[in-house]
Amino acid sequence: MKLATFEVETPVGPVERIGAVAEATDDEDAPAGAATLVDLTAAYGAVLEAEGEPAPADLARAHVPPEMIAFLERGDRAIEDAREALEYAAETDAERGPGGAKLRYEPDEYDLLAPLPRPNSLRDFMAIEEHVRNSMDGEIPDVWYDLPVYYKGNADSVVAPGETIRWPDYSSIMDYELEIAAVIGTRGRDIDAENAAEHIAGYTVFNDFSARDIQGEEMEGRLGPAKGKDFANGLGPYVVPADDIDVLEAPMTARVDGEVWSEGTVDEMYHSFADIIEHVSQSETLHPGDVIGSGTVGEGCGLELGTFLEDGDTVELEIEGIGTLEHTVLE
Amino acid sequence: MKLATFEVETPVGPVERIGAVAEATDDEDAPAGAATLVDLTAAYGAVLEAEGEPAPADLARAHVPPEMIAFLERGDRAIEDAREALEYAAETDAERGPGGAKLRYEPDEYDLLAPLPRPNSLRDFMAIEEHVRNSMDGEIPDVWYDLPVYYKGNADSVVAPGETIRWPDYSSIMDYELEIAAVIGTRGRDIDAENAAEHIAGYTVFNDFSARDIQGEEMEGRLGPAKGKDFANGLGPYVVPADDIDVLEAPMTARVDGEVWSEGTVDEMYHSFADIIEHVSQSETLHPGDVIGSGTVGEGCGLELGTFLEDGDTVELEIEGIGTLEHTVLE
Repeated sequence: MKLATFEVETPVGPVERIGAVAEATDDEDAPAGAATLVDLTAAYGAVLEAEGEPAPADLARAHVPPEMIAFLERGDRAIEDAREALEYAAETDAERGPGGAKLRYEPDEYDLLAPLPRPNSLRDFMAIEEHVRNSMDGEIPDVWYDLPVYYKGNADSVVAPGETIRWPDYSSIMDYELEIAAVIGTRGRDIDAENAAEHIAGYTVFNDFSARDIQGEEMEGRLGPAKGKDFANGLGPYVVPADDIDVLEAPMTARVDGEVWSEGTVDEMYHSFADIIEHVSQSETLHPGDVIGSGTVGEGCGLELGTFLEDGDTVELEIEGIGTLEHTVLE
Repeated sequence: MKLATFEVETPVGPVERIGAVAEATDDEDAPAGAATLVDLTAAYGAVLEAEGEPAPADLARAHVPPEMIAFLERGDRAIEDAREALEYAAETDAERGPGGAKLRYEPDEYDLLAPLPRPNSLRDFMAIEEHVRNSMDGEIPDVWYDLPVYYKGNADSVVAPGETIRWPDYSSIMDYELEIAAVIGTRGRDIDAENAAEHIAGYTVFNDFSARDIQGEEMEGRLGPAKGKDFANGLGPYVVPADDIDVLEAPMTARVDGEVWSEGTVDEMYHSFADIIEHVSQSETLHPGDVIGSGTVGEGCGLELGTFLEDGDTVELEIEGIGTLEHTVLE
């Protein structure tokens, strides 16, 4: 199942909803973002209505709320409700659920947003040794092996799939980073690695856009990256429930104007997502909607390849089983 | 005016409100947190009711919402409404406003929360040269002079004034940092330094608790501090509107178990709050509820003094005109 956040124009202003890609158009050849979406809240309402439940629309909003973080917070039960809703929508000829809510949206009827338009937080790791070696001229600090180091990104800078990225005036070295991100569903603190999986709701594609000139400069100040990262974070196009993807094996590809620049998987994560969650959650609470980036796959960015993005380039990051996240950068 | 967020027990569960310290108990000798608070939403409702406004309670919630970020977002107008409400409450004998809402709370009738229990974000700078020199063994990187470097903290780890801090198991070097923080009220992007003041709603005391052992270790990984900072951020006890305080001149003091450890001001900020806001807002939107820490004043932490907190120590950070922020640390 591929979970989306989308926006619908209405006479009273735009309304945000959550959806899932309809099976019928779950087509590898379909252009990015061209899926038919089932409105999960509306479709779950239709399920409840068919079962004779009173107040199906209200109950559906409580069980499958039309906002991704609230939805993920409800855990496996909400995921199961969503699967039931998606299945029901595939089988019914009805166009609307209780309260007159449309069950399906064609591509020209909605705007796709990032699945988490505003994550609760954004932490980004660098758990893949090859990337670290390539990025640091071979000098990997000892601490890298001892614990999963990370920085915290700007959760307010998430851009929608397909959105054009205006490169900051202060930078002229434009780079992408090919990553997969885990999305926390279940709140927790002091989580053991062996229980960490219970806290991950799903995964999405993460493009950690990087302004390499300012990043290198500011990191000399020893407080980590800030302006080098915080202008844009690509997340999406979908969140795939943890049960639906083999994260370590999923092929990951970066293409620039159609040409493959990076290929890999995160199967070489030196620190696993489970270890990362154990580390981060010590004396800190993880919340629904927290996003945890894997770090870049080996040779998964221009810095490692010795080449950078140019004005007007379109970057596509694809992770098999999730989808393709596309952005064009403009100077 | 000293603005607070507080919580009131009710039969239907705790309710969060915003208030201001009543003039009558605005007493330098009063113990921290022992103020009488005027409920600003209720008192503004009483003002509107006295003016014969229909639906005063509803209007008051719209103009002076009982949530700090929403309140600050309304800018100077809400601050002026709050001043009017505070003045009205000082003059009236009435105990309740429209809808039966209490106008005043005595110390035993509320729990003081951090003024922003969950800021939209937390950025912390190190803008005072003496602190940087003392912390870095005199080796200040060149970039420090060129731009205001910073890290992003954990906005979910804000602790209430007076709350006991359980030190993380992974650390045994406990430190405080004496800082003042600007709170953003008005949203903005690409803000010029000369217009930056318009975006600052007010200021509060910031204790950037620091686990020095893990902080030193993880920063070797070059992504800045994380576990060394993210377990606890002290903010409070009040937000003081920008017009009510001369930030650069306000005396700042840190006391440990009653003994003065640090004294200073932020008048030596090498990068001003205005410059910081210009820097951060380049290609990034600043939002209401964003918190910007000044960095530690010179000799404003144990690291600079060569001594650290011990189990059971009580740290008080006082900024004249704002108040005293107190926490006890326990191993």
